[in-house]
Amino acid sequence: MKRAIGIGIDAGGTFTKIVAATRTGRILAQQSLPTVPEGGPRRFVRRMADSVRVLERGLGAKGSVTLAIAGEVDLDRGALRCSPNLAAFEGFPLRRAMGAALRRRLSLHNDANMAGWGCYAFEFGRRFPSVVAITMGTGIGGGIVLDRRLFTGSTGSAAEIGHARIRDGSFPCRCGARGCLEAHAGSYGVLRTLREVLRERPRAASALRALRRIEPKDVSEAARRGDRIAREVWERVGRALGQGIVNLVYLLNPDAIALTGGLSSASPYFMGALRRVIRGESFSTPFSHTVIRASRHAGLGALGAALYSLEDAD
Amino acid sequence: MKRAIGIGIDAGGTFTKIVAATRTGRILAQQSLPTVPEGGPRRFVRRMADSVRVLERGLGAKGSVTLAIAGEVDLDRGALRCSPNLAAFEGFPLRRAMGAALRRRLSLHNDANMAGWGCYAFEFGRRFPSVVAITMGTGIGGGIVLDRRLFTGSTGSAAEIGHARIRDGSFPCRCGARGCLEAHAGSYGVLRTLREVLRERPRAASALRALRRIEPKDVSEAARRGDRIAREVWERVGRALGQGIVNLVYLLNPDAIALTGGLSSASPYFMGALRRVIRGESFSTPFSHTVIRASRHAGLGALGAALYSLEDAD
Repeated sequence: MKRAIGIGIDAGGTFTKIVAATRTGRILAQQSLPTVPEGGPRRFVRRMADSVRVLERGLGAKGSVTLAIAGEVDLDRGALRCSPNLAAFEGFPLRRAMGAALRRRLSLHNDANMAGWGCYAFEFGRRFPSVVAITMGTGIGGGIVLDRRLFTGSTGSAAEIGHARIRDGSFPCRCGARGCLEAHAGSYGVLRTLREVLRERPRAASALRALRRIEPKDVSEAARRGDRIAREVWERVGRALGQGIVNLVYLLNPDAIALTGGLSSASPYFMGALRRVIRGESFSTPFSHTVIRASRHAGLGALGAALYSLEDAD
Repeated sequence: MKRAIGIGIDAGGTFTKIVAATRTGRILAQQSLPTVPEGGPRRFVRRMADSVRVLERGLGAKGSVTLAIAGEVDLDRGALRCSPNLAAFEGFPLRRAMGAALRRRLSLHNDANMAGWGCYAFEFGRRFPSVVAITMGTGIGGGIVLDRRLFTGSTGSAAEIGHARIRDGSFPCRCGARGCLEAHAGSYGVLRTLREVLRERPRAASALRALRRIEPKDVSEAARRGDRIAREVWERVGRALGQGIVNLVYLLNPDAIALTGGLSSASPYFMGALRRVIRGESFSTPFSHTVIRASRHAGLGALGAALYSLEDAD
């Protein structure tokens, strides 16, 4: 049954966001609630289904639903194959259980893939057929829309851009390898880069030296205030991202790339370096049409899921 | 008009191959003739059109035609944007001219993209929806078929896998950058690797030291005879290819990858190292379903073009 309202449920390790939107991306209602993974998947499904029902009562209409979730999704089984932050949900038949609780068919997708759809359908307003989202958080993920279709790959693992290598055997990554993009530009990559810069420049003054527990937003804030060490950190992160994007463009030659997720708000401090890497390529045709920017919208995972639920594809 | 015979014309810098085939890839006729780029594009078009007509008279039927060509293709204009080996054809409206000479609509594509279609439709017999061809010659190119459709990107430059970086600032590439896959595993990359290995091991005996002018096939032949230096060269080329394929799989997670082109015949000497790089990845899901092999067929560019001409896509 074709519905007019799409509902996206974007489940992260800490919070789950629920968004109801029209086909054009107008948000009708939204809600953020704790995920509570330690309560187990059954309780999660019950709580989310309750929230969706309350939300639908408020709107006076039922919607199509897509559940977006952080981790490796088994698209055939509709379950989470592996997730560092939602390990308690691994293997549980989330799609079937949520579908039963809400009494409708729904689809389950990786959250970064849904951010990719959000970039395609909302951020860039369906103007470009091929769009890539790069999600920058603790890890770096991605979502790929090619010729107006979500592309997920043979095991649903397409767009794992965070693990493509950008350096030979340099920073260690959570995945066990070295030199992954994520190890240089994910949140722990930013902090690792900060330690490197502080070590290389022991005499340089920086407000960051005094902080006990540093998070990437502290490095952004310091950069905003002109801290040289912080500026250098973002410069290096930008170069790492630029290299990752160069490799991506040689393979996919997309129309547009958007950086999304928490860390993308530091774009004023890394975008210059990122663009310099791209301008440095002498083989320039593949880059000539690709729009690259930080997303202007937060929560593209949930909104992308809401919009994707209205597609015929699933 | 729907035809039963597809004709692929694959124009390289030296030779042009013409193949007529059925939808299942059965070859009905084929021909190889010199390209003679210095004669200019008009003469090339006339000669190829004459050959196609002669071939069609022999078969007693007309075919659909796709022209595959080495270089950057402007798909909108149906012309070669830039080509190191066919510079004389750049900017000339090849698609329109060949269409006029043969009195039918035809399509013009990059030769590596057509090899990608050949891999999808013939090498792997349409068993896999997403297939990547890596063409190994002087340069390294590629062709990408995703969800059963040829993917060419925003400027027709998708699958330029030869210029994705696999090493920080190492071997210089023809494109002006350093560390490109092509600079390590294209034919000049193989010879550069040979010089590196010979320099590193000045005392190691090798038949290759005595040769005046070495080509990659000499390095293959030496490896076949057990030459240690040659074996080490292919080992390093295999590691470079393995790293390039790791990055590709993280982005595209295809069902299958085939190595094609002249250099792929050295696969007995590089495939072991290539597979070791992939097995070394601790994040293993994306690789778990991807078939990787050297192509079992030569001339997939021309055959791929013949088969692609029978698709509805163009």
